[in-house]
Amino acid sequence: MTQVFVNIGLSLDGCMAPEGMALEHWQTPGYRNWGAKWGALMGWILRQQYFRENLKLGPGGETGPLNDMLRNTVERTGASIMGKRMFEQGEISWPEEAPFHTPVYVLTHQKREPWVRPGGTTFYFVNDGLESALEQARQSAGSRDIRIAGGADAIQQYLNLGVIDELEIALAPVLFGGGRRLFENLREPAPKFRIDKVFDSPTATHLRYVRD
Amino acid sequence: MTQVFVNIGLSLDGCMAPEGMALEHWQTPGYRNWGAKWGALMGWILRQQYFRENLKLGPGGETGPLNDMLRNTVERTGASIMGKRMFEQGEISWPEEAPFHTPVYVLTHQKREPWVRPGGTTFYFVNDGLESALEQARQSAGSRDIRIAGGADAIQQYLNLGVIDELEIALAPVLFGGGRRLFENLREPAPKFRIDKVFDSPTATHLRYVRD
Repeated sequence: MTQVFVNIGLSLDGCMAPEGMALEHWQTPGYRNWGAKWGALMGWILRQQYFRENLKLGPGGETGPLNDMLRNTVERTGASIMGKRMFEQGEISWPEEAPFHTPVYVLTHQKREPWVRPGGTTFYFVNDGLESALEQARQSAGSRDIRIAGGADAIQQYLNLGVIDELEIALAPVLFGGGRRLFENLREPAPKFRIDKVFDSPTATHLRYVRD
Repeated sequence: MTQVFVNIGLSLDGCMAPEGMALEHWQTPGYRNWGAKWGALMGWILRQQYFRENLKLGPGGETGPLNDMLRNTVERTGASIMGKRMFEQGEISWPEEAPFHTPVYVLTHQKREPWVRPGGTTFYFVNDGLESALEQARQSAGSRDIRIAGGADAIQQYLNLGVIDELEIALAPVLFGGGRRLFENLREPAPKFRIDKVFDSPTATHLRYVRD
């Protein structure tokens, strides 16, 4: 059965992105040191062979359990949902062949025709809310899973809808000292999860929670 | 050499205590559901034999690696430092034989004579700041370690002083939806830690970070 899942990197102080990491500072990673902080969060992923291949970052890279984990995350995904800000940052960062290879539903007020990329990714711009995006993703995903890709806002809204089945968090040992927190604006009662699996590595602790 | 360490329970959304958990609601754990949330955070610890014995909660309890971990935390501690609010909550909650059995330095503006409890705990009320409390704790601790016991404010201030050598966090799979966040008000550049050890249990993920 299709699972709705989140798979993200998180700083030890609970942020998905450091302060200063925004479109207007994209070319100045020294601004509030956002580039170095982002690197500390994502360093392990940037070194994996599958990630490098998928993002066209060049040959080589580590193979092993973390690489398998990344591949599995992409392969299980039949559709993704993301917020507008994440899309806008990706639009200027992803290679032409965007790294999804499936439909991606973008939550936005902007009206825009579907944007078809080489390699199987099509971005659909959804103007009529969370449930609609989820329903469309469900239609596309078939027997595969739906990833709520981010950012924090989008994940919070789907947590509040109570539809997240699995939370996969790569907790990196870096303190951002501020930024976009993952867990905020949660409605009461908050959704309940239990620990499913923990995979320990020197660069991040991979925590997997499933709905209880 | 004496290490300065933190050992706390943390909710998945990064809180040490849920909203509503305050002295004025101590007798009404139903207030904002703080009692149930606190229970979800601390359930595993309340079931351990050593904790039960130390807090005079009655006989029995689990023995095993978590119990050993708790005993080790108490036995390695030569002195503790805590904030005023934590002390005030403890003052009405701890048994007469307070569970520290060492000097405890309380950061406060209140002037008060040392409070000697049976069983070896003496509370000293420190009015002249963080460094002074740390220096006094160092004198008392001898070759043992110094625990910054909490709450969140006190830990944040010592993180900002750059003196925390080890961060031990029992990350419980509960979302508080609000409360006292551990990681807030951090100064730039934030202190750097690396992952030292992860101990995985069904009820909490025990993360140990050491200063990098």
